[in-house]
Amino acid sequence: MSDDRQVDPPALAVRRAVEVALAEDLLPLGDLTASLVPASTRARAAVVARQEGVLAGRLCALEVLAQVDPGVEVRWILPDGSRVLPGSVVAEIEGSLRSILTAERSALNFLCHLSGVATLASRFVQAVAAANASTRVLDTRKTTPGLRALEKAAVRAGGAWNHRANLSDAVLVKDNHLGGLSIGQAVSRARDAWPGRYVEVECDRSEQVAEALLAGASAVLLDNMTPSEVAACVSMVRASAGSAGVLVEVSGGVTLESAPAYAAAGADLVSVGAITHSAPALDLGLDLDLRPAHDGPREGQEG
Amino acid sequence: MSDDRQVDPPALAVRRAVEVALAEDLLPLGDLTASLVPASTRARAAVVARQEGVLAGRLCALEVLAQVDPGVEVRWILPDGSRVLPGSVVAEIEGSLRSILTAERSALNFLCHLSGVATLASRFVQAVAAANASTRVLDTRKTTPGLRALEKAAVRAGGAWNHRANLSDAVLVKDNHLGGLSIGQAVSRARDAWPGRYVEVECDRSEQVAEALLAGASAVLLDNMTPSEVAACVSMVRASAGSAGVLVEVSGGVTLESAPAYAAAGADLVSVGAITHSAPALDLGLDLDLRPAHDGPREGQEG
Amino acid sequence: MSDDRQVDPPALAVRRAVEVALAEDLLPLGDLTASLVPASTRARAAVVARQEGVLAGRLCALEVLAQVDPGVEVRWILPDGSRVLPGSVVAEIEGSLRSILTAERSALNFLCHLSGVATLASRFVQAVAAANASTRVLDTRKTTPGLRALEKAAVRAGGAWNHRANLSDAVLVKDNHLGGLSIGQAVSRARDAWPGRYVEVECDRSEQVAEALLAGASAVLLDNMTPSEVAACVSMVRASAGSAGVLVEVSGGVTLESAPAYAAAGADLVSVGAITHSAPALDLGLDLDLRPAHDGPREGQEG
Amino acid sequence: MSDDRQVDPPALAVRRAVEVALAEDLLPLGDLTASLVPASTRARAAVVARQEGVLAGRLCALEVLAQVDPGVEVRWILPDGSRVLPGSVVAEIEGSLRSILTAERSALNFLCHLSGVATLASRFVQAVAAANASTRVLDTRKTTPGLRALEKAAVRAGGAWNHRANLSDAVLVKDNHLGGLSIGQAVSRARDAWPGRYVEVECDRSEQVAEALLAGASAVLLDNMTPSEVAACVSMVRASAGSAGVLVEVSGGVTLESAPAYAAAGADLVSVGAITHSAPALDLGLDLDLRPAHDGPREGQEG
Amino acid sequence: MSDDRQVDPPALAVRRAVEVALAEDLLPLGDLTASLVPASTRARAAVVARQEGVLAGRLCALEVLAQVDPGVEVRWILPDGSRVLPGSVVAEIEGSLRSILTAERSALNFLCHLSGVATLASRFVQAVAAANASTRVLDTRKTTPGLRALEKAAVRAGGAWNHRANLSDAVLVKDNHLGGLSIGQAVSRARDAWPGRYVEVECDRSEQVAEALLAGASAVLLDNMTPSEVAACVSMVRASAGSAGVLVEVSGGVTLESAPAYAAAGADLVSVGAITHSAPALDLGLDLDLRPAHDGPREGQEG
Amino acid sequence: MSDDRQVDPPALAVRRAVEVALAEDLLPLGDLTASLVPASTRARAAVVARQEGVLAGRLCALEVLAQVDPGVEVRWILPDGSRVLPGSVVAEIEGSLRSILTAERSALNFLCHLSGVATLASRFVQAVAAANASTRVLDTRKTTPGLRALEKAAVRAGGAWNHRANLSDAVLVKDNHLGGLSIGQAVSRARDAWPGRYVEVECDRSEQVAEALLAGASAVLLDNMTPSEVAACVSMVRASAGSAGVLVEVSGGVTLESAPAYAAAGADLVSVGAITHSAPALDLGLDLDLRPAHDGPREGQEG
Repeated sequence: MSDDRQVDPPALAVRRAVEVALAEDLLPLGDLTASLVPASTRARAAVVARQEGVLAGRLCALEVLAQVDPGVEVRWILPDGSRVLPGSVVAEIEGSLRSILTAERSALNFLCHLSGVATLASRFVQAVAAANASTRVLDTRKTTPGLRALEKAAVRAGGAWNHRANLSDAVLVKDNHLGGLSIGQAVSRARDAWPGRYVEVECDRSEQVAEALLAGASAVLLDNMTPSEVAACVSMVRASAGSAGVLVEVSGGVTLESAPAYAAAGADLVSVGAITHSAPALDLGLDLDLRPAHDGPREGQEG
Repeated sequence: MSDDRQVDPPALAVRRAVEVALAEDLLPLGDLTASLVPASTRARAAVVARQEGVLAGRLCALEVLAQVDPGVEVRWILPDGSRVLPGSVVAEIEGSLRSILTAERSALNFLCHLSGVATLASRFVQAVAAANASTRVLDTRKTTPGLRALEKAAVRAGGAWNHRANLSDAVLVKDNHLGGLSIGQAVSRARDAWPGRYVEVECDRSEQVAEALLAGASAVLLDNMTPSEVAACVSMVRASAGSAGVLVEVSGGVTLESAPAYAAAGADLVSVGAITHSAPALDLGLDLDLRPAHDGPREGQEG
Repeated sequence: MSDDRQVDPPALAVRRAVEVALAEDLLPLGDLTASLVPASTRARAAVVARQEGVLAGRLCALEVLAQVDPGVEVRWILPDGSRVLPGSVVAEIEGSLRSILTAERSALNFLCHLSGVATLASRFVQAVAAANASTRVLDTRKTTPGLRALEKAAVRAGGAWNHRANLSDAVLVKDNHLGGLSIGQAVSRARDAWPGRYVEVECDRSEQVAEALLAGASAVLLDNMTPSEVAACVSMVRASAGSAGVLVEVSGGVTLESAPAYAAAGADLVSVGAITHSAPALDLGLDLDLRPAHDGPREGQEG
Repeated sequence: MSDDRQVDPPALAVRRAVEVALAEDLLPLGDLTASLVPASTRARAAVVARQEGVLAGRLCALEVLAQVDPGVEVRWILPDGSRVLPGSVVAEIEGSLRSILTAERSALNFLCHLSGVATLASRFVQAVAAANASTRVLDTRKTTPGLRALEKAAVRAGGAWNHRANLSDAVLVKDNHLGGLSIGQAVSRARDAWPGRYVEVECDRSEQVAEALLAGASAVLLDNMTPSEVAACVSMVRASAGSAGVLVEVSGGVTLESAPAYAAAGADLVSVGAITHSAPALDLGLDLDLRPAHDGPREGQEG
Repeated sequence: MSDDRQVDPPALAVRRAVEVALAEDLLPLGDLTASLVPASTRARAAVVARQEGVLAGRLCALEVLAQVDPGVEVRWILPDGSRVLPGSVVAEIEGSLRSILTAERSALNFLCHLSGVATLASRFVQAVAAANASTRVLDTRKTTPGLRALEKAAVRAGGAWNHRANLSDAVLVKDNHLGGLSIGQAVSRARDAWPGRYVEVECDRSEQVAEALLAGASAVLLDNMTPSEVAACVSMVRASAGSAGVLVEVSGGVTLESAPAYAAAGADLVSVGAITHSAPALDLGLDLDLRPAHDGPREGQEG
Repeated sequence: MSDDRQVDPPALAVRRAVEVALAEDLLPLGDLTASLVPASTRARAAVVARQEGVLAGRLCALEVLAQVDPGVEVRWILPDGSRVLPGSVVAEIEGSLRSILTAERSALNFLCHLSGVATLASRFVQAVAAANASTRVLDTRKTTPGLRALEKAAVRAGGAWNHRANLSDAVLVKDNHLGGLSIGQAVSRARDAWPGRYVEVECDRSEQVAEALLAGASAVLLDNMTPSEVAACVSMVRASAGSAGVLVEVSGGVTLESAPAYAAAGADLVSVGAITHSAPALDLGLDLDLRPAHDGPREGQEG
């Protein structure tokens, strides 16, 4: 069933991001270097992982190639969410050498960045799973500007889950941001103004958790607490009558080292900004094979 | 003179990136949570560094605030390129609490990401400067899709330099990408087709350096060589008649640890993809101060 | 010959409107609900009318499906301008269930809205035709912002005609808008400044009609007059020497009830803002048939 | 507190919609008719309601004027959500007559359409409130393509509430759309894939309601049931252990006539597609006053 | 009254064209050369004509400066449509030297191109006016892609007139394009399908003129006829009963040399594609005055 | 090898420019005239040169046809850069007559404008080649706003070369623009700030050439000098030690008449703004052949 997980971003988000990326790499003169190569030269190439990790960004790479030259043929081998090792062949490409060279960096920039996000997400997922199988790792809104849809999809490819996608889809109230409202008032206003929405309350102290439960919050976000403080809050939530479905989320500087302890403390959700804002790129490259390719009309006789 | 360095991206790049970022965070309903706060509540806030590093992204943060609410007043204190410590106050903001809350994450996403780039760039600059004052650190085209203009400006804010900005502004030929052309043929074609352009040749072996010099390349890019191999190539270039201005660039997996040795080997330029593709975000936050602010028409009597 | 009427909007207008509509329905995470369905599930569906009316919006619905998933196959049965009854099958669709679910609402939003416009237009056309076969029903510039090209095409699908499309293609002067110019001066300036353009004069009183005729207007727009006042103005125009081709248009709150009387009074044109600004949606829906569809590679054996 | 309700759409949505609307009304030649008026003529005008209803669209009208001519001064009198009567003055405008004429129709198109939505929403709110004070009226995703953010804000201005804004922010499963999944499987998958999201189940029969409750749905959407069937389902939900917060929504062809009975039957939410897809425009117009305005440099002496 | 002629394009067209122009000149790194100048250096500059001609493009130049740096102050001296001589000062500018240098070429590209169009238009206007005061010079749809609104406004600045702006605003039928329809059938269909539109018939032979008149065309376009053939057609039109308002247009390779003869032959309109497709740029430049400007906060003491 | 010259602009630039051009010609109602033709009428047409010149704009014309109607079939015969004579058939088209008529003018506007640029470029290339085979003709940044990528490609199609593409890809300093910096300071700053970039110095006098050489400029641009002054500067550059690769460019009002003398004077590069800002359109037209085409399903039997 996991292969059915929706790891693709909306096609529209892919098309737009790729158009912007190609504009910044190709305008106004196009690829000066590729223009030196004879126009009829064809080549084969492989996208190859050079590092262990988890793949994401397939649709973006395909779209880069399609926008540069719809005549380039691509056989995509490993779907997003696949684990790769150094040397894993991700995709095979055949077509005009000029087109492949022109598309190379833009396609890899998407793949390496998004696979970096997926890889870091999967490391958190593994760290947490070992400690508590029912704890889930979430991303945050701390995404790279312009890439939210793509990075959120990469998070799913890495086996983690998406927190709210933007300010428009859920309510998350924080005590000192309320301009004079109490937590109770804020939750009540949220229920009144936005029926059916997830209403989460960020809590720095356990008294706030109690207040949030009383107010009927959907979830509490425990910010910068120690694992033992978290454990105490989890107990409080579980013991509270009428809080059956209330989720406990831990956030605030969670690392690969600290995440297991929070999971063990019983948190339902551990959200990690670093997954999207600080994931190093995964190293993937293009191996170009000029030998078996041949100029002119293609005949396809050789493998 | 350093304060005169152009660290701002083009205004157009800022406006477009901010519009896209706000679209992904606010559409279609706007900020559900901020809507709970009374519309007349005003607040003051400060953008504060929580980590040591180098700032970048000022124009983006200002643009986020302006697009969300032109009525918010901002006093920007530290220019891009400033070194910050935990607690450094970067900017002070005053205006509608709703607007400040709505703009907060988008503004910080730009600041944290771009300051992360500037900070990593400055660490490479420092590492290299200690070994060879005349070696410069360059970025690459391995930028985050959609953010090239902003990241390249952040690199400058970090004290490093920009390599070619895109495929359209310089020629960079690599032996095995040429589809049958020799280095000499490629450089010759480049000089013929694109007069006055920088023509760099990527070299894996010293024989290629000799070939590139003979062909009249503007620069050689030494890829994945050891420092001693680099030193040998530098000597070859310096000794070559008619290669007075030829630059020697080192690239390929350069780290903070290995960069000094390459600089000491005499490289003019050390280019580092990680500066843009793997810089962790710099931690900056918004400290909100609701007390001194007051509702209703502003009178401005208190500091 | 009527089947040759141009009822399609420009392809560009369709592509743009659909992209905007999908952006507002799918970004950033895509269709959460469709993601629950196995990716390989295929389905067949039919677009079916649930109400009597006139169809419009075919190109938009096709474009929604194509942008969501070019692999979905569509057999479009009834062209724009077709009269439908409850149960009429408009189109048959086959493809990925996920894609069909994702596209459903956006495609129907276009179809229902534009068919609503076509249906109301056709009701006015019928009402008027019964009273005066030579009177035509026109739309106005009172269109829904962003949809003018699509709504004007839907008006044609409904059998009515387009008035000027925007402020740039014809002159329409109104007495009290002229800032001191007389009707004569205004028409004269219009003839001078914009040769070959339609110059219409909005008239509240018959004296203005006389003035407009004298000035050489192309048409007079009788605003908020009674049918008998209209008849008197029509007589004046017909009797006027040199006014052979001058058109008489009636406008201002014309309803299905009042339109026939205006037609009977001899008006050439009756323009109705309500056709575009107040047409209720026509009810069309998607009937999903999961049974005959089958998972995996399609074999096509069954009808 | 009601005056604090967030009735404004995001500024970005306003700017984009207005730019598109002006493009379709003004390109390429601009306003031919306004060009006939002397450029120095100034005018005053008032936006006036000609019908009873509820206002929405203020930001759009202001943006139209600003994009056409930032020099036009506007005094906006009645905020969105205000109830208007024939003759109510909504806003007063002063500036170049050419600019006012050019902006008039586009500004009114937004105001009349969005006020139409707000007005119909408010009629449903009133109808329901009389029957059951705790029942809320919701909109749907059946919005006009391109205007979702604006129409959803108009719904709030009319005193009603927003259902999910798009396919990306909540899960809504329907039995016969599931491709072989049971309701229980679908809810379970939704909880697994999208933690913290609202998961609603559309039910045609009471057995499905039971199944949805068992599965832990956040809400049930009763589709096309009679008020007495709804009452039975409400009882079932209220009696179900562990379903304290489960919302009961009624949908499917609800009219002003039938809505009170559904409210009386105990539904928490009544959603009505017609509010956005079939609201007739509210009649507002521009009253132009050319007398007190004067040509040339403004002196400001008169009121 | 001529100073009242609408010579400005819609503001929207200006904003869009300028944004595109700046994107192609400044992205991604901005102005490398201007960055060498100290950021605090201020300058004054004048836009000066270096050739005799007619000005157009004022709004575009202002928009370039505003988008580059809203802090640059501009005093625009000569409105569009002004006749300039070598040395005529068109505008004076004061502000950051960096900003002025960055904006210079883009602003001049608009001014020189559009003034070139205005100048050629005015030359045709003068040539024709000497021969027949009632003949008007028109542009065509042969405009530079992307600049139609701006070039059509420049044509007006040059004292000429606009033919139809696009395919959507008038009907122009040509015999051999009709796919089997006669001229009569085509005009009749046009009157039927697009009431109130200008319907012009392109004629290569006088028999076609007769056919067009009989069919009730609004105008005849005489294509590639000699002046004497034109004179004969004009006589035919003037003598035709019921053709009082029918315009006679001459088109097809009209030059400054041949235009007067066509005017003398009695044509109402002479349309010239060259005005927009082949107008050489008018030479305007920027004179930079660095002496009186001074660094730092401005004091404004000196002239 | 010359047929391998990269004469195509980036695909993205083509798509964007064509979309804008079609928007301005077709919105909102589409092609009124083409709508009169029966929808099923098919036609064949040929794009034919009517004047001697050099072709450019193939990709734009193909894109216009594809965006209007992907069903139109095109056989493109002459590639960009081909020399044409009156009557040369450039491309053959077959498809819906409506679509061909609708696309005609937009496609020709691109072809005629860009071929005009290519033609003028080739005339300069020929003029210069006769005088000095090693002198190259360059374009400038004096391009038509919005068309830089397309015009720069047309320049290459005409056999000339591209100077810097925008302000972001090279440094070009001019004495009186430096705000107090000397040429030496400016070049030094440029080398410091933008390593590896082309740094050219514009010189009005030979002393400035000496200064530029001393400063290590990549090239000198001799502005408005006589051929003999140019010859003297060329000698100075060639005689200067360490200036082996320094290019000498001549600019400033160079005409077809004066260009050979500058070439003979030994200039490496002659740059000519007129190639892009003042090239008259090349006359190409569409010959429509309605006879052999036939209605209904195509059978393809006849040639």
